[in-house]
Amino acid sequence: MFFTPHGLVETPRFMPVGTLANVKTLTPAQLRDTGAQMVLSNTYHLHLQPGEAIVAGGGGLHKFMGWNGPMLTDSGGFQVFSLSEMRKITEEGVTFRSPHDGQIIKLTPEKSIEIQNTLGADVIMAFDECPPATASRQEVEQATERTYRWLERCIAAHQRDDQALFGIVQGGVYLDLRCQATEALTKLDLPGYAIGGVSVGEEPELIHKIVQATAPLLPNHKPRYLMGVGTYREMVMAIASGVDLFDCVIPTRWARHGTAMVQGDRWNLKNAKFREDFTPLDETCPCYTCQNFTRAYISHLVRSQEILAYTLLSIHNITELIRFTQKIREAILRDTFATEFAHWLAPQEVGEGE
Amino acid sequence: MFFTPHGLVETPRFMPVGTLANVKTLTPAQLRDTGAQMVLSNTYHLHLQPGEAIVAGGGGLHKFMGWNGPMLTDSGGFQVFSLSEMRKITEEGVTFRSPHDGQIIKLTPEKSIEIQNTLGADVIMAFDECPPATASRQEVEQATERTYRWLERCIAAHQRDDQALFGIVQGGVYLDLRCQATEALTKLDLPGYAIGGVSVGEEPELIHKIVQATAPLLPNHKPRYLMGVGTYREMVMAIASGVDLFDCVIPTRWARHGTAMVQGDRWNLKNAKFREDFTPLDETCPCYTCQNFTRAYISHLVRSQEILAYTLLSIHNITELIRFTQKIREAILRDTFATEFAHWLAPQEVGEGE
Ligand SMILES: [Zn+2]
Ligand SMILES: [Zn+2]
Repeated sequence: MFFTPHGLVETPRFMPVGTLANVKTLTPAQLRDTGAQMVLSNTYHLHLQPGEAIVAGGGGLHKFMGWNGPMLTDSGGFQVFSLSEMRKITEEGVTFRSPHDGQIIKLTPEKSIEIQNTLGADVIMAFDECPPATASRQEVEQATERTYRWLERCIAAHQRDDQALFGIVQGGVYLDLRCQATEALTKLDLPGYAIGGVSVGEEPELIHKIVQATAPLLPNHKPRYLMGVGTYREMVMAIASGVDLFDCVIPTRWARHGTAMVQGDRWNLKNAKFREDFTPLDETCPCYTCQNFTRAYISHLVRSQEILAYTLLSIHNITELIRFTQKIREAILRDTFATEFAHWLAPQEVGEGE
Repeated sequence: MFFTPHGLVETPRFMPVGTLANVKTLTPAQLRDTGAQMVLSNTYHLHLQPGEAIVAGGGGLHKFMGWNGPMLTDSGGFQVFSLSEMRKITEEGVTFRSPHDGQIIKLTPEKSIEIQNTLGADVIMAFDECPPATASRQEVEQATERTYRWLERCIAAHQRDDQALFGIVQGGVYLDLRCQATEALTKLDLPGYAIGGVSVGEEPELIHKIVQATAPLLPNHKPRYLMGVGTYREMVMAIASGVDLFDCVIPTRWARHGTAMVQGDRWNLKNAKFREDFTPLDETCPCYTCQNFTRAYISHLVRSQEILAYTLLSIHNITELIRFTQKIREAILRDTFATEFAHWLAPQEVGEGE
């Protein structure tokens, strides 16, 4: 576990994503009840709307969105590299067109840190270059080296003692580059580290290899965060390698598609078999949805395209993933993780994937 | 006030509308916190989706949707007459095509009561014929007489002692027809009465005239319900004539358009002046939204088309209308209604309307 100015984070733990200063469809009170501790928000999106000045005017990210728990902002790097069509990368930073109003925006390590200092999350992330899964070894090597130089600039630009700056390990699918980058980063003695540049289109098996090669090299008394990953199996595998933190938009995105995550499976609530099923989604689940509603009711709301369906499913799905990481934590504390989660750690059979 | 098997209803009171067994965007816990007592649901919509058998399978409407307070279902009459294009009216009932699957559906007084008995609300409504504002006097006269004959059939068909069947006064804009209908209905000694067939496209002044002619003739020791009306001025005027209950979809519909109802005004939260306004929507309002968020934050959510915006605005708007009727109740108990609400009771100036 680790401490932040806004409270404790027990690890390993799944972190819900609140892209635009809210976890989609949930009030902070509902979010609290899912067991959420640290919540992530996106610097890129908040810079475009409403802009960090307005967030600061509202008293900073915590007060603006009414979340008094720990928060983390990413650096905007991932979004700029994955979302922006019209971008230009130089040593100084990245230039791109705002998808809102077409305005030219320049994001540099200094600018990303300035925005994150203004937003005021407990943990902020270094601005990194995140190459696509299709990049050549040479491109990845250059991006990894640049990410290191940018990290040094981020450290120099960082102004607030109450925010912990995490470095990000890049290196694509090249394990030797990953190891070199990890070694260089750990020498900087940062308060936490992340493994970035995964979940960009590569095979799950490659994620496992990258994590297995990288996570054990990171200091085990500091938080280790695997960015953008939040599926059951990938979390179990990563935790086995020492990863502490995860984030993923899947639980809320699937909720908005009428999909429930139940003990490792996923269910489409439009399925006819749920129409007259008067049991809860998961009778072992303590969430508000499972305590108060049946599959038949949620199926009715999904069929009717009622917004409440997405809220109830988001409550359940986030609770489910947080509870999954809590169960792993308890198993680790009991020293039964490897046996209790052997099913997830075993090599995956064909067709068994999510 | 009056009692139902699921609790007390203090009058006058605004009733939120939960068309498809949910008040749009709100959980029952959030709905409870708005001060909601009786909640309305629509027989027509529930018959089409999920069907009353599934609601009954889920333990009846209260248990199915998780609302343990008083509930009312309308008869489906209003929807059939206003929503269905392909309908045919005979003495027996109304035949129309389901907008879901094109299937032919017949709704009769007996069928409407059977569905409402199956749904299980505390108050159920008689199946009435609701002519449009453009109907001729002869058409309205025939519809009003038929509504009376249908009411007699509803009374005969009604099977459950724990449900109160309310009659509906029709008569269009013809005050003499309204008075005759009221007189005939009150002789039946029903547990409550509604004024129907208003808010179908006529001028607000006509609604006042209809209510002023009708409400005082209804027994004042029984609930009097003005169907489909829930704007500030119309409620004040109607309460002055003795009306107790109101329902309207406006607070949730406007919420989904980014509109807040604040002390008689309505605000579009997209307006630039709210972008950096760090005060609550209404600092006198006790709702969750006003206690936790600023206009700037809600404006940001509306601009970002975040679903949470609609939830927060629905919470506020429903609280606002219920609180408005609560304030009137308190003024009536203090005997200061006519003076405190003189502003609303005064003739409306041109351009002052909502
Ligand atoms: Zn649950
Ligand atoms: Zn409010």
